[in-house]
Amino acid sequence: MRDVAVIGVGMQKWGELWEKSTRDIFVESALLAMDDAGVDTLDAMYIGSMTPGVFAAQEHLGSVMADYLGQLNIPAARVESACASGGLALRMAYMDVACGMHDVVLAGGVEKMTDLSGSDATHALATAADMEWEGLYGVTFPGLYAMMAVAHMAKYGTTREQLAAVAVKNHYNGSMNPRAQFPMKITVEGVINSVKVADPLNILDCSPITDGAAAAIVVPADMVKKFKKPGVKIIGTGHATDTIALHDREDLTTLQAVTEAAEQAYKMSGKDAKDIDLVEVHDCFTIAEIIVSESLGLFERGKGGPAAQAGETAIDGRIPINPSGGLKSKGHPVGATGIAQIVEIAEQLRGEAGGRQVKNARVALAQNMGGSGGSSTVHILEVM
Amino acid sequence: MRDVAVIGVGMQKWGELWEKSTRDIFVESALLAMDDAGVDTLDAMYIGSMTPGVFAAQEHLGSVMADYLGQLNIPAARVESACASGGLALRMAYMDVACGMHDVVLAGGVEKMTDLSGSDATHALATAADMEWEGLYGVTFPGLYAMMAVAHMAKYGTTREQLAAVAVKNHYNGSMNPRAQFPMKITVEGVINSVKVADPLNILDCSPITDGAAAAIVVPADMVKKFKKPGVKIIGTGHATDTIALHDREDLTTLQAVTEAAEQAYKMSGKDAKDIDLVEVHDCFTIAEIIVSESLGLFERGKGGPAAQAGETAIDGRIPINPSGGLKSKGHPVGATGIAQIVEIAEQLRGEAGGRQVKNARVALAQNMGGSGGSSTVHILEVM
Repeated sequence: MRDVAVIGVGMQKWGELWEKSTRDIFVESALLAMDDAGVDTLDAMYIGSMTPGVFAAQEHLGSVMADYLGQLNIPAARVESACASGGLALRMAYMDVACGMHDVVLAGGVEKMTDLSGSDATHALATAADMEWEGLYGVTFPGLYAMMAVAHMAKYGTTREQLAAVAVKNHYNGSMNPRAQFPMKITVEGVINSVKVADPLNILDCSPITDGAAAAIVVPADMVKKFKKPGVKIIGTGHATDTIALHDREDLTTLQAVTEAAEQAYKMSGKDAKDIDLVEVHDCFTIAEIIVSESLGLFERGKGGPAAQAGETAIDGRIPINPSGGLKSKGHPVGATGIAQIVEIAEQLRGEAGGRQVKNARVALAQNMGGSGGSSTVHILEVM
Repeated sequence: MRDVAVIGVGMQKWGELWEKSTRDIFVESALLAMDDAGVDTLDAMYIGSMTPGVFAAQEHLGSVMADYLGQLNIPAARVESACASGGLALRMAYMDVACGMHDVVLAGGVEKMTDLSGSDATHALATAADMEWEGLYGVTFPGLYAMMAVAHMAKYGTTREQLAAVAVKNHYNGSMNPRAQFPMKITVEGVINSVKVADPLNILDCSPITDGAAAAIVVPADMVKKFKKPGVKIIGTGHATDTIALHDREDLTTLQAVTEAAEQAYKMSGKDAKDIDLVEVHDCFTIAEIIVSESLGLFERGKGGPAAQAGETAIDGRIPINPSGGLKSKGHPVGATGIAQIVEIAEQLRGEAGGRQVKNARVALAQNMGGSGGSSTVHILEVM
């Protein structure tokens, strides 16, 4: 297998992009990444998107996007692992380049979510859960993660304030990210007093509905010098699944797919949790960031909440989590999220993150989750 | 890259499987393939499905299917290229094994289409076309392929009878396939007098709406001796795209994505069209089989219709096309079709095809198409 590196990344400002369609926002981000890399032709493309058929009545994004990006006839595939579709696209692009199929490959992600009403968007998202045993009985994702939060609080004493600390930290980070959908700063009191969604989660514990796309260009590591920007090497990739339904799991306070994917990526990279300088994780809800931080081995079980509250996960903390602002502040166009994590990591490892810059960042980890942990990808990247 | 072989295949009888859900039919076919191979654990899984979110309100099939197949925690990804999703799943599994990521990988496909009404299923399928420039103006797939048929008839003199000959041949072949949805024999007169769908295509020119799944197990070629059945080597893979909308193409009488994908697979395998002993192609409509047979280089342009009429593509003809019965007779559960082609080819190359057996079959080609040719995969397989 060849070594593989990211040599360009791009994403637009996320939000409610009424004037643009799914293809517009994907092409916009892809062109930003291609410009960042200094390439104008691609050999292949992988596009993560969760449910464009439901959100926008458009499947077959491989053909649509290669066509509208002016890359006619290239192999272009859409891949899906619910909200981990972006991470999966990066993994497929990695595999493609690693095995020598192609040299210049785009890994992208896109979701245009705001064309549906709120309840229709909630239905669209529920297709990532077990529709037969969860969705059809009325449970939605805030409800599923609320159950995980209640279990974590009961087992470890995690508090309402600790959940809020995650949102406050991510909005603070996002306030320095010009592409964030909700860059406003918030307070612990603000989170606790915001409207209830599914007890104990309030609206400010939840990531938003977002339109957006993101893209990364990957190439063989030994070709990096040909391109404009410094390369960032992908040194580990992991992908794992878990039971689709929450009720089939032995323990609601941990995420087995995250742990398994991380173990694969740690083993492949020769790194361990203690070697990681910064992390982008899938904070679809505040409780998710806490459980993921534990499942990745960054904190002992039950210590994720206190760590967030103590500032250990801030940009200047022991292990910065979500310097980009995370899903919470930056937005969560589900298929694009996993690639946006790579955008942040590339900028961090190239020293381009401005006010969000983590000092001396050399090794970073991205964790992208599908559904309520039914799947997860983990990637580890390193400066070259 | 490692050489890769198929060592097990499976699919159930296709049709209107009212008593089974999407997960049931996938698991059923996957277990048949695992039994055929003699394996009970998988290292990874790729699942082709076009639009389970629209057809069955269930995305995240990687997690769902790994869970229900009893393969907990393995990396399991869903891939999509419209009706070429099955072919794409095989390609991803090939790449995964070739680059050394995993050893025992399942490539599967599934679609449960009959839970929607006919008009809703037509909407679901239209998401494979250009929704913004085709679907929203009312054109559906029979209409798109009808335009291609009219253009082919005008340019080359292809006749109504030649189109019918394709359907008659495929139903004859399907009458010997115990898993075919519509195994009845039909006549040229029957096709010509069947109800009009989109001029010049009648109902018996069109593949049906089907519930079904199919699966294949791929492993490194040097591990084949460990398994129950003879291996069938994947010696070429190709994947290409074309404009999503028909009106953006220079020529409606050929399919550029098919030609490009075939060129990749021919080059990789060192084979040419003349080396192929049998072919499974994507006959979603009778005109598709004719144009594909030309775009693959099996016949000169304009000669596909006369060749079908002259019996050159029959099981005992010069180049047998769709000995399985094709999409027309066997059925077309869109995401599963590309893998069902591999099921037929494995059985043909192992000499297990019974009345459908092509004599001295050593090299076979599978062509799987997305939409109206917006994408295509091509695989070439050989006896070991």
